[in-house]
Amino acid sequence: MASGNELRPYLSHRADLASGATSPRKLLEDYITRIEAREGQVQAFVAMDLERARKLADASSERWRAGKALSPYDGMPVGVKDIIETEDFPTEMGSPLFVGWRSGRDAAVVKALRAAGAIIVGKTVTTEFAASHPGKTHNPWDLRRTPGGSSSGSAAAVAAGFLPAALGTQVVGSILRPSSFCGVFGYKPSLGGINRGGSHDFLSQSCTGVLAASLEDAWVLARDLSGRAGGDPGFPGIEGPETVPVPKLPASVVVLETPGWNEASEAARQALADGRDRLKAAGVKILDRKTSSLVEEVEKAIEACFVLTRRINAFEGRWPYNVYRDMDASKLSPGAAERIIQAFELTPDDYRRDLAHRDQVRASYARLAGIADCCIMLPATGPAPLGLESTGNAAFVVPGSMLGVPGWNIPSFAVDGLPLGLQVLGFLNEDAELAARVGAIDATLGRAELRMIG
Amino acid sequence: MASGNELRPYLSHRADLASGATSPRKLLEDYITRIEAREGQVQAFVAMDLERARKLADASSERWRAGKALSPYDGMPVGVKDIIETEDFPTEMGSPLFVGWRSGRDAAVVKALRAAGAIIVGKTVTTEFAASHPGKTHNPWDLRRTPGGSSSGSAAAVAAGFLPAALGTQVVGSILRPSSFCGVFGYKPSLGGINRGGSHDFLSQSCTGVLAASLEDAWVLARDLSGRAGGDPGFPGIEGPETVPVPKLPASVVVLETPGWNEASEAARQALADGRDRLKAAGVKILDRKTSSLVEEVEKAIEACFVLTRRINAFEGRWPYNVYRDMDASKLSPGAAERIIQAFELTPDDYRRDLAHRDQVRASYARLAGIADCCIMLPATGPAPLGLESTGNAAFVVPGSMLGVPGWNIPSFAVDGLPLGLQVLGFLNEDAELAARVGAIDATLGRAELRMIG
Repeated sequence: MASGNELRPYLSHRADLASGATSPRKLLEDYITRIEAREGQVQAFVAMDLERARKLADASSERWRAGKALSPYDGMPVGVKDIIETEDFPTEMGSPLFVGWRSGRDAAVVKALRAAGAIIVGKTVTTEFAASHPGKTHNPWDLRRTPGGSSSGSAAAVAAGFLPAALGTQVVGSILRPSSFCGVFGYKPSLGGINRGGSHDFLSQSCTGVLAASLEDAWVLARDLSGRAGGDPGFPGIEGPETVPVPKLPASVVVLETPGWNEASEAARQALADGRDRLKAAGVKILDRKTSSLVEEVEKAIEACFVLTRRINAFEGRWPYNVYRDMDASKLSPGAAERIIQAFELTPDDYRRDLAHRDQVRASYARLAGIADCCIMLPATGPAPLGLESTGNAAFVVPGSMLGVPGWNIPSFAVDGLPLGLQVLGFLNEDAELAARVGAIDATLGRAELRMIG
Repeated sequence: MASGNELRPYLSHRADLASGATSPRKLLEDYITRIEAREGQVQAFVAMDLERARKLADASSERWRAGKALSPYDGMPVGVKDIIETEDFPTEMGSPLFVGWRSGRDAAVVKALRAAGAIIVGKTVTTEFAASHPGKTHNPWDLRRTPGGSSSGSAAAVAAGFLPAALGTQVVGSILRPSSFCGVFGYKPSLGGINRGGSHDFLSQSCTGVLAASLEDAWVLARDLSGRAGGDPGFPGIEGPETVPVPKLPASVVVLETPGWNEASEAARQALADGRDRLKAAGVKILDRKTSSLVEEVEKAIEACFVLTRRINAFEGRWPYNVYRDMDASKLSPGAAERIIQAFELTPDDYRRDLAHRDQVRASYARLAGIADCCIMLPATGPAPLGLESTGNAAFVVPGSMLGVPGWNIPSFAVDGLPLGLQVLGFLNEDAELAARVGAIDATLGRAELRMIG
């Protein structure tokens, strides 16, 4: 996918930034050119301030000139998913209840972005409360299609070349699914990897992550943000080198079908099979449910992910959804209104059973670390579907969310002229090891040639 | 302590509420009489609305009359510590930065209080951001003395008979220490026992709990709130009966000295020794560091609690303290300003080491479950000290906070005419078992006779 789309890894400019051959201001102008050309169609942003961005880019340019860059990504233009608070923009959460609402405060991760010199260009579109009711964003590869959700605007903005990176969050499939549909790198860290303070996602499976134009941009940003803001309180945060880990081909990989397999298109299955074959040809040992009884056990265990995720999220969402309902129930989507009713039908005992079951499934998956370096699977049943009324099928991304393990989308494949990713899942708190494997898998598989048909 | 103070358990009126012999409105007027008589001196509240409370009490009275009480504590007047958001009052967090600040939203636990028919009379004084810089509240037993902190207003309001119960939070000693100083029951549930959504305490050791006029009030309220609001996302919440557990004398109790012992007054040590003797006389087996090598091991392990708690809280507090600092650093207490500097000297690696060390200490303590039903210790080095410039020594309450286990203060003792409690710690997620033991210990020890000298 090198040709056609506008992906521009920010860190690929590092040497030129250091030498003065380019500057954050110059780079920003390139991004702005693309924003001005296509944002009217793509609609990735809820709010944007290009003049402020230019001022901040000038300040960053000055720092680079003086040899005083605050971080390797000083001057990087970024987008922030609109459930995460920023002092300077409203936080509308994709809901008419919060139009123009301002907390007046930066979230932990936003405070960290600013400390590193990143430029917050704007807030990116989210589905309603980062759940399923879609926002206005179009898929830049084909405007008739969904960008996926809930980090819709972040994925579309990176895919369209508006930004090299944007923050997203995932509790069901909100980073990896839109990353697949939009053909960008998506990185969902281990649970609690990046401090969620000031982000309006309060669920035990929810996680802040990065969508970016390259593995390197995603890793360096996420790793640095975790260092500055910490992980969630009580969690270790992302461990590993500040620079992108050296690629390391996995010795052994588990191919997971997951319950999504039955819903996957033939072309998507074929893409995964091709990827699998290429890894095998490169010397990677492949394990799957047919060749390993342990994998078969895990495949069975993760069948519970869907029901558990729905129920756990519902119970945990009773608050603040009851606050939203009582603010003005008529401004909730029908789906949200229905979820509140279902949530209050669940009892604390139900919830405790579900948590215990989730622990069992996580323990089952963790045993795969004994036989493989990582797992690969489809991130979606196919490329982005037509229409904006749904953000697509989340079947393949629920397991990684529920397991709480680190996960990536690599924009490896193309189906019907549209992007389709490869999902790679690792093991809890082994984020750096996973990034090294992702780098090697990406290099082995290469990228399909695609051209945006916007 | 039955005589002299104004403690009025709300649930002791349940039969009369059900029969119509009394009503929430009548009870509220008794509380208001005491508020009007002494709040000018005690200053337990930051904000209060007695007229609204009367309207809500009338509605509750109507429900009781109609046999439609929403909960056993429908109509209970409660106070809410002012780091917890309520829709109807500001949330000032004990900081000049937030004078008049309104979130416009109820915290999860406040939403649950309202659903149960409780009456939120007002917001109670907290130290600055629930840390150490004191608020304006005086100890109702002796106005020259601190009520303890950080749940200062909640403890004082209950002790003065302004309210039968109030919400507090504890991350260092903020429920059990003021409960001891003010001679009330304090209950800090197992970690994550009550949903903290909308409470401005973001630390991994922080916990919402209840200060109340009786064990029953505290248990029923906390247990019900956990059921309605859930525990923190991912935590099981408080398990056990909705009514107060039947008292059950522990077969075996560990007496912990903790590092506070060297700082405790002779009279406080004597109070604990008396309590210990009375439990022994009642047939309880007593274990301590002299008679059990396992206890000695735990005593040594928990010596680390102080340093770990300080460091872990500091690291986790980098956000939102950096937001507070950048709002207006001149409005932070000197202690808070200093903590921010120290916090940013800690690295993520330091923090991960501290978390691992905390896990070790927790595991060490958990082994005591094999030899005893609960642990007892002093909650404070003595009664409330003179002066309002400090909320007192937290030496005895840090271990329970760091361990994350359920804990109670029983207002058992009197020293120099002032209350001193007994601290009882249980084992993680065995809150109901602990409450049963606390009931039996309370019955065995009885209460000292005390008279308020305010």
